[in-house]
Order: sequence, then C-alpha cells, then structure tokens
Amino acid sequence: MATTITDISKKGKTPTGTELNTKGWIQEAALRMLYNNLDPDVAERPEDLVVYGGTGKAARNWEAFDLIVKALKDLEEDETLLVQSGKPVGILPTHKDAPRVLISNSMLVPHWANWKNFRELEAKGLSMYGQMTAGSWIYIGSQGIVQGTYETFAEVARQHFNGTLKGTLNVTAGLGGMGGAQPLAITMNEGVCLAAEVEEWRIRKRLETRYLDKMTHSIEEGIEWALDAKAKGEAISIGVVCNAVDLLQALIDKNITPDTLTDQTSAHDALVGYFPEDMSVEEANVLRQQDPEQYVSRSLDTMAHHVRQMLELQKRGAITFDYGNNLRGQAHDLRGVENAFDFPGFVPAYIRPLFCEGKGPFRWVALSGDPEDIRVTDEVLLELFPENKSLARWIKMAQERIAFQGLPARICWLGQGEREIAGLAFNKLVREGKVKAPIVIGRDHLDTGSVASPNRETEAMKDGSDAIADWPVLNAMINTAGGASWVSLHHGGGVGIGYSIHAGMVIVADGTEEAEIRLKRVLHNDPAMGVLRHLDAGYDIAADTARKHRLNLKDRLNK
Amino acid sequence: MATTITDISKKGKTPTGTELNTKGWIQEAALRMLYNNLDPDVAERPEDLVVYGGTGKAARNWEAFDLIVKALKDLEEDETLLVQSGKPVGILPTHKDAPRVLISNSMLVPHWANWKNFRELEAKGLSMYGQMTAGSWIYIGSQGIVQGTYETFAEVARQHFNGTLKGTLNVTAGLGGMGGAQPLAITMNEGVCLAAEVEEWRIRKRLETRYLDKMTHSIEEGIEWALDAKAKGEAISIGVVCNAVDLLQALIDKNITPDTLTDQTSAHDALVGYFPEDMSVEEANVLRQQDPEQYVSRSLDTMAHHVRQMLELQKRGAITFDYGNNLRGQAHDLRGVENAFDFPGFVPAYIRPLFCEGKGPFRWVALSGDPEDIRVTDEVLLELFPENKSLARWIKMAQERIAFQGLPARICWLGQGEREIAGLAFNKLVREGKVKAPIVIGRDHLDTGSVASPNRETEAMKDGSDAIADWPVLNAMINTAGGASWVSLHHGGGVGIGYSIHAGMVIVADGTEEAEIRLKRVLHNDPAMGVLRHLDAGYDIAADTARKHRLNLKDRLNK
Ligand SMILES: NC(=O)c1ccc[n+]([C@@H]2O[C@H](COP(=O)([O-])OP(=O)(O)OC[C@H]3O[C@@H](n4cnc5c(N)ncnc54)[C@H](O)[C@@H]3O)[C@@H](O)[C@H]2O)c1
Ligand SMILES: NC(=O)c1ccc[n+]([C@@H]2O[C@H](COP(=O)([O-])OP(=O)(O)OC[C@H]3O[C@@H](n4cnc5c(N)ncnc54)[C@H](O)[C@@H]3O)[C@@H](O)[C@H]2O)c1
Repeated sequence: MATTITDISKKGKTPTGTELNTKGWIQEAALRMLYNNLDPDVAERPEDLVVYGGTGKAARNWEAFDLIVKALKDLEEDETLLVQSGKPVGILPTHKDAPRVLISNSMLVPHWANWKNFRELEAKGLSMYGQMTAGSWIYIGSQGIVQGTYETFAEVARQHFNGTLKGTLNVTAGLGGMGGAQPLAITMNEGVCLAAEVEEWRIRKRLETRYLDKMTHSIEEGIEWALDAKAKGEAISIGVVCNAVDLLQALIDKNITPDTLTDQTSAHDALVGYFPEDMSVEEANVLRQQDPEQYVSRSLDTMAHHVRQMLELQKRGAITFDYGNNLRGQAHDLRGVENAFDFPGFVPAYIRPLFCEGKGPFRWVALSGDPEDIRVTDEVLLELFPENKSLARWIKMAQERIAFQGLPARICWLGQGEREIAGLAFNKLVREGKVKAPIVIGRDHLDTGSVASPNRETEAMKDGSDAIADWPVLNAMINTAGGASWVSLHHGGGVGIGYSIHAGMVIVADGTEEAEIRLKRVLHNDPAMGVLRHLDAGYDIAADTARKHRLNLKDRLNK
Repeated sequence: MATTITDISKKGKTPTGTELNTKGWIQEAALRMLYNNLDPDVAERPEDLVVYGGTGKAARNWEAFDLIVKALKDLEEDETLLVQSGKPVGILPTHKDAPRVLISNSMLVPHWANWKNFRELEAKGLSMYGQMTAGSWIYIGSQGIVQGTYETFAEVARQHFNGTLKGTLNVTAGLGGMGGAQPLAITMNEGVCLAAEVEEWRIRKRLETRYLDKMTHSIEEGIEWALDAKAKGEAISIGVVCNAVDLLQALIDKNITPDTLTDQTSAHDALVGYFPEDMSVEEANVLRQQDPEQYVSRSLDTMAHHVRQMLELQKRGAITFDYGNNLRGQAHDLRGVENAFDFPGFVPAYIRPLFCEGKGPFRWVALSGDPEDIRVTDEVLLELFPENKSLARWIKMAQERIAFQGLPARICWLGQGEREIAGLAFNKLVREGKVKAPIVIGRDHLDTGSVASPNRETEAMKDGSDAIADWPVLNAMINTAGGASWVSLHHGGGVGIGYSIHAGMVIVADGTEEAEIRLKRVLHNDPAMGVLRHLDAGYDIAADTARKHRLNLKDRLNK
C-alpha cells in the first residue's frame, strides 16, 4: 500500500480522556499508545509510520494500522490479538489474566538474519523493523535519551564522587542527536560539562532547547568558565566550537585533568560521523565529497590521536569511558592503537552494575492526556523513595526542563522491588481517582533482563555469555505468563538486524484489584529476570540483589 | 561437571503410578517426562543426557538435572520454573493458569548463531543443544519417525490414489535410522514397498523388528515379488541388497514405472551417508578411508545418475519426491544437474497441505506407565473420528507393530478442531477414572504453526516468507498465555544451529475442570497459529480451514 499524507491525516489524534473507545482499559491503552507512537510530536516520520531509530515502525503499513485499530476495538477481555511484524494476524481465545496483545517483530531464522535479506522481505511486505519501543508501542520521545544519559552520569557519580557530580569537571565531545543530551544530563547531576562540538549550528540548537547553557569559540575561554564553575560548585554546561582533539590537547598542555572524560562523536562512521583535525568544517565537507577515501583516512588518524589523548588523561587520573560509539574499536583495529581498550565501555562500567540491581528504564504514561496526572505520579514517587537522591534530582529537573511529547510521560530508572512498589502506588492513584484515567507502565527493551546484544548491552559479560539469547525469550514468556498487558519479542533493535534479540513489556494500572495482582507479579518478575541473568553470569551485585529479594534458586532448594 | 555412569545410575527409574512425588500433577508430568526422555529405552546416550538427533539433550549436565528435579518437587501450583538451555535459573510467581515451566534452548543472537560459536559456548557450560523434543521433554522414541513417514505416504495416497496405496508400487532406497521406517509406513498404507539398501545388515535389522517383510539379493526377484503383490493388492515390503541406481536402472530397462518414487539414503553427507555405484560395500569402505576425496567425487557422480533416473521415471509417470536428504541439491550444485529440482520436496508436496489444515504430530503419554491406558485412549480416538480412515489404519497397525519405549505413548496427526476434541476426551477419561493417571499431551516442534526452517518445514513458502521467524515466537507466547503446562522456544533443531527457530508445547489432562478449560484453549490456539501462518502465506486450504473454524481476522472485523 502506498503511504500518503492522506493516510496519516485519516488517522486522527490520539484519543485521550476518560471515555473508552474499546471494550476495556487494556485494549484502550494499546490503542492510545499505538496512536501516541505515531503522534507528529513523538514520531520522526509519522507519514511513513516511522517512530524513531532509522526505520523503526509502529505498524507495517496503513492497512495494517487500520486493522490493528479495528481489532483492538473489537477485542474482548478474554481474547488476545497477535501481531506479526506490525501486521495483525489473528485473535485467539485466552483469559482475563493473559496479555491482550502479543507481538513478534523482525524475527528471522538466524542464518538469514542480515539487513539484505531483511530489506528484501520488508520490500515484499512480509516484515517490519520494530526497533525497540517503536513496534511495541511504548516510545515516549527524547525524554528516554536524556534520562539514559542522566542515569549513566548518576552512576559515575555514585561510583566515584559520592553520588553527585557537584564540583567536578566533565569533558566530552559531540553534541548531535544523542550526544546533545550529555550537557543536560551532566548539569542535572550537578556537574560542569565542557563539550567540544565542531559544528556551530549543533551547539546553537542545544542552546535553544536549553540542553546547553553557554557557547564559545575560544578553547581558552571555555576552560576558564569551566574551572570557575567547578570551583564554585556550579552546575553549568559549556559548548566549545572546536575539534575534540584540540580541546583535549589544551587540557593536556595546561596540565588540567578532567574528573570524567568520554566522547559521543559518531566515530562509528568515519566518513559521515567524525571530523578530522587541522581542517575547518567547510574544508572537511569538500574533502568528504571529493575524496572520501582520503577523508576516512584522515578521520581515523584523528581518532587514533583522540584515543591516545584520552589514554593520557586517564593515566593522569580522569575517569575515562567509551560511550558506545566504537571510537576505541576504530583506533585499535584500523590504526593499531594497541591499548585502546584500556578504558572501558559505558555498559560494563556504569550500566551493568545498575542491571545487577534489576534497574532499568522504567516509564509510565498518563492515558488521560493530562500533564497534571504525571505531576501527581512524580510526587508519589518522590514520597516513595526519599532516600534515592538521583531519582529526586531527576524528577525535579525533568519537571522543569523536559517538554512532554504526545501523551504526558515520565521515565526513571527503578530496580528490583522499587518497580512493584511504584506500580502498585500508581494503581492506587487510579483507584482513588487521584489521576483521571489509567496509567500505562512499560520500559525500554534495553533493560536488565530483556536484551541480548553482544556489541552493546551484553558486551564483555563476565562469563562470556554475550551472545546467549535465551534470557530475552524467557523474559517475554514470563511476562506473558504473569499477565502483562502486551508483550513483544524483537530482533535487531538498537544495533541492527543480526545483532540483538530483546523483549518488551507493558502493563496497565487501571485501578482494579486484578490489575494490582498482575502488577505485583509482572513488575517483580520482569526485573528479576535481569537479576537472575547477571547472577548466572557471576556478578556479585546481582548475587546480593538476589539474596535480598529471595531470587536465588539454589538458596531456595538447599533450604 | 564430568558425566559418569554413576550419575546416570543415581538418576533412578521414571516414576510411574498414581502417587505424586511433587505438589501437583503438572509438576509431576514435567518430572516424569524429563525422566522418560532419559530412559535407557528411549534416549540414545542417556549417560551423556543425549536423547536423540546428534547431541539433543534433556538437561545441560547432571548437576542441572538434579536441580531441575529438586525444583519441580518444590514448585507450587502458582509458580513457574525457568530453564535456560537445560539449566534451571529461577522460580518466579505466576498463577494456576500459567505454565509451570518455561524453557528457552540454544537461542543465540543471530550474528553469532553458528555451530562454532555454539560449541564454544557449550564447552564453557553456558548452553545446550535442545533439538526439538529432547530439551522440551516430550520425546517418545522412534514411534514419531514411523508415524511421520506413515503420514507422508498417507497424504501421497490421499492426493493421488483415493486414500490408500493398495495396489501401488512404491520404490525407495536407504533403510537406515529414519529411512528404515519407510517399508512399515508404506505397508501400513496398504502399498507395496520395494527398497534398495546396499548394506545387508541394515536390511536384516529391519526384518528383525518387523519393519520389513522380505529380503533378496536379486533385483530380478525383488521386482517379481513386488509386481506380484501389487497385482494381488497385497501390502508387502521388500528389501533388495543393492545400490539404489541399480534397482532404478532395472526398472527403467524393463519399462516398469513405479507409482511413487523417493529416496532416503543419507545423500546430504557424500562421504559417510552415500555409496557410489560399481563397487561393493567393502571396496567403498576401503576407498572412504584411503582416498576420501575420490570417494566423495564418485558418490556425487552416482547421485547425479540417481537424480537423472528419478527424473526419467517421473517423466514416465511416477509420483516422485525428495525426502529431505538434499539429493537434489547435491546433484544440482555439485554435478550440474540443472533440472534436479523438477521433482518437489516432501514438505511442500505432502506435509504443507496437512499443515494448512492445522494438522501435525500430536502425541500423548500415559503417566501411569500402564500400556492399557494408551489402549483406552486409542479406542476413544477411533470412536471420535470414525471417518478418518488413515487414522484408524494407523492406530490399529501401531497397536500391533509398535513397541512402546519408556512411558507408553501414542502419536497421530490431528488437525484444527480434532486436537481439542481429543484433548477434552482424554481429560474426561482421567476424570472418570477410565485411565489410571493423567495423560500428557504434546507434539513435535515440527508442526504447522511452530517452526521456521527454510531448508525444511518452511522451504519454498508461497509468499517467500521461508525465513520469517515471528510465527514460532507467537506460538510460544500464545501457548504461554493460554496456559499450556510447559512451553519452550528452541533454536537449531532438526537442521542445526542457525537454520531453524521452533516452539514446543505440552499440556496435561489431569481430569480437572480447570484443565478442561485450558485444554480447550491451548489445543485450539496451537494449531490455529499454523492455519493463520499458512493463511497469511496465501494457501487456499488454509483459507478454507480458517473459514471453517472462524479464524480469519478480516472476516471477523468486516462483519
Ligand atoms: N551505545 C549507546 O547506547 C549509545 C548511546 C548514545 C550514543 N551512542 C553513540 O554515540 C555517537 C553519537 O550519537 P549521535 O546520535 O549524537 O550522533 P550524531 O551523528 O547526531 O552527532 C555526532 C556529533 O559529533 C560531532 N563531531 C564529529 N566529529 C567531531 C570531532 N572530531 N570533534 C568534535 N565534534 C565532532 C558532529 O558534528 C556531530 O554533531 C554514535 O556513535 C552513537 O552510536 C551510543
Ligand atoms: N527432512 C526430514 O524430515 C527427513 C526425514 C527423514 C529422513 N531425512 C533424511 O533422509 C536421509 C536418511 O536418514 P537416516 O537417518 O535413515 O540415515 P542413515 O545414514 O541412518 O541411513 C542411510 C542409509 O542409506 C544407505 N545407502 C547409502 N547410499 C546408498 C545407495 N547409493 N544405495 C542404496 N542404499 C544406500 C546406507 O547404507 C544407509 O543404510 C538423511 O539424509 C536424512 O536427513 C529427512
């Protein structure tokens, strides 16, 4: 079916308010979240059904979208809709405590699992790229990226600086689509951010949205501002229009050692994502056009230089880590920087310890459409976890700085135990009428027990189990068994076809007692899969978490 | 952990009878079926936990086996045990209508999904090859192979000979592990089987087990016996000690056209599985040792000859098909037989039409251990489906000819609608005490809606969706949602790591009303996934089945 602007305009707005368009709140939640994923304020290219992340879609085509909507409206409370890569393929009898929707996206038999075959099948209309939260109807806009970055720096703070970046100098580079969240994430953690970005327009964009506080063309000035703020304990972010290596060289020469050091240039793509040193942006753009090979070669030379500088600053005491852009890999594999991997990736260093506690990107959405409902949930969360300082900081800053996109939503990382507490509290709010309509609770697939992705989330597992994909499968099955509202298993999200298997879970707090029982189960089991996965891989923190929450099977059986 | 004979002897016998060793019949069923899979009469190498199919195992190692047993004994009726590639990793709270065990076996992130990586992970103790029914505890010995072969020939009979092979001459070759089931399957369908097998001891073995009726060294004599039986309408099987190509040449020369023609030599392995023409078995064995390259080359030459003969006989009117041994592929790819694929594979030709009706390898096991219980179920089945002649023929012959291995079991192919009827009837038998203990109902993963395997079950799908693996995932999820007793998702069964994704389902008929509700749901939904999968791919038979059983989503929504 051709995709035309008529189709999208036909779709209409996301339903909000307290009236049902379906036969129950769970079906209604799925309907609203599907619409929300394709809201023009949320989706990247709603006219093509593309939500985010390349071609991550919410439905296979407009015909499939229409059919899903019809099916959700017709679906009884003891039936389940099956969605095969964005196309509804059947409704089968189940029961009230079963999911209302089951989704499998982009799954291929492994030997055929590459982009070429996938694109062919997609072109034949047989599949769809579901990314993570696009095809599982729980994307909530860019709040997720800010929060993920915030959480990484919060963990840096916890591990090295007593829980706050106050009084620390945090140096990075790259203020693009994802990297642009760094300055905000760092100031939210009370630190000073000094970021090199070679393209001025990128910095201006971050200033406009208030993700960044100040800009300068002078490296000298930038460093001065930063040291001043650090000394005063002020949370400020500074963008310097320059190449990353020039900023780092100035720090090395002046004998200034940042407290933390990372990088989010798009080093994974040497031609399009990274700028070589000793040339202007204009010169680089010309060279890229005229002599791509030469460009790539100069890019890689600069990356090698860049990594050596980072290693030097690490030696001088900077907490240094790779932010998933393959900078280390490029320098190591293509420029022979043998010790490039002496600084760690951000997942093993900062995300995995959180995963070991069952922590991950918990999020919720107010189906009423009323931002006030989220404010109410924010308050409840602050009351529930008074000891969680980074959570409190996040919620307060998010209320001030994060604009809602589509249905009002909030994201924050919660761990084993915390998730069920939050879910039950939200259900109580709905029951008591303190929020206007049910709350949808979900998470990214990039979570503790729901993803196998050897180049990212499961990189360098302690026991070498990076490529084992049983865990996301068990996660999808236990959430189905527990009675999540909709459950999905996807292939290829985040890192592309062939490189990951991951599961999604969404559960609706509609205020009923049945929902309470399901929430207790599902929000216990879902992170528990992650604790068990990391326990099995030999992580001590996971062993502690398992002990605390009585998850260890051997302990139970040896009683 | 080392695998020693002490371990297996420690295991003990499969529990039988009416006393529980666990806290409920579902847990008990899982326990008994796990034991049964490793019964010395059932498993190929129980001491290594290998059940069948290369290294298809029931548990990762003896430590894991012990822990599963302990866990099943401790498991409450509202909890679920998680098994990751043969190792129990946790027990989580669910509810009575959820599966008691969820299993994921051998799943790998696709880019890493090959034997090399798998074997490395296996060696590290991190994974296990689950095959299909080995790691999902529903293997029942060689009855499955006989029945699958029987069903193929029954479908041949239905499509071409009015439902019976009576009065037909069916020619094949290869009477090895699987191929040895052919003579029995053909005579059970009332036809004459004339099979070439080069190794005399293989034929003797089949005579001993009564899978084969007669043997001769003379091709002349074999053909004479066969034509005589065909004329008289007698069901007889004849093994001729000769190379397949010599038998086919004789038929061509004598202008005798078989009614059906296939082959089950192990042509997929040119060195070990196939004998070249113009040499004795002894000469071949010497050549294989001394000059393997030469052996393979001569093998391939013979295969080319073999395929050309089959094409010639097909031209003369023989219903000719490939039986999944890659004979066509070898002749085509390595000896340039351009038209090798002019005769079809057995799945697209004979199995897929059954899949389109939701038919597949339904099986059940008497937990009492008493063969009489199976006899009772056999009778019930005959009463339930009096119009199904091939079913009746199978049951009667199976009662006479098939020896039970381990717990008494029966297999027969049932379709959409039939499976729920059978399941409910068995539950009634349990409730009314007409059988001594609950009945376990399951199936092979090689089923209509549960497997994606482009080189076998999903070869040459009408819409090109061979490699799409969403279907087995949805199958596992809907069976989990419906309340099957245990559910599994596996990778690599049948065709090896990288080449398939498939799901398993087992449900216990314990006589309760709750079980009745679950049986009705699960035995409806499980084959329905297959009907929907084939409907989506454009098969007319599936469209008819969907209409008959009200499975078509568009029909429902356009009401
Ligand atoms: N693994 C993860 O979860 C994760 C999370 C966030 C980001 N990343 C990675 O981070 C990288 C950035 O992502 P993005 O979406 O922000 O990319 P982007 O392409 O939108 O932005 C990259 C920015 O870097 C700037 N840049 C390039 N070379 C530079 C140099 N030498 N000096 C200074 N600035 C330079 C560019 O001008 C651009 O603004 C990507 O490689 C991405 O994969 C990974
Ligand atoms: N796709 C399926 O579901 C399916 C089902 C059954 C069998 N198969 C295939 O069928 C083949 C046979 O399986 P098996 O387990 O019986 O194998 P096997 O190796 O046990 O037996 C093969 C037999 O063929 C005989 N043989 C070899 N070359 C011969 C020749 N030129 N002439 C006469 N006899 C010859 C051998 O002596 C041996 O007895 C395999 O390739 C298997 O993969 C596939």
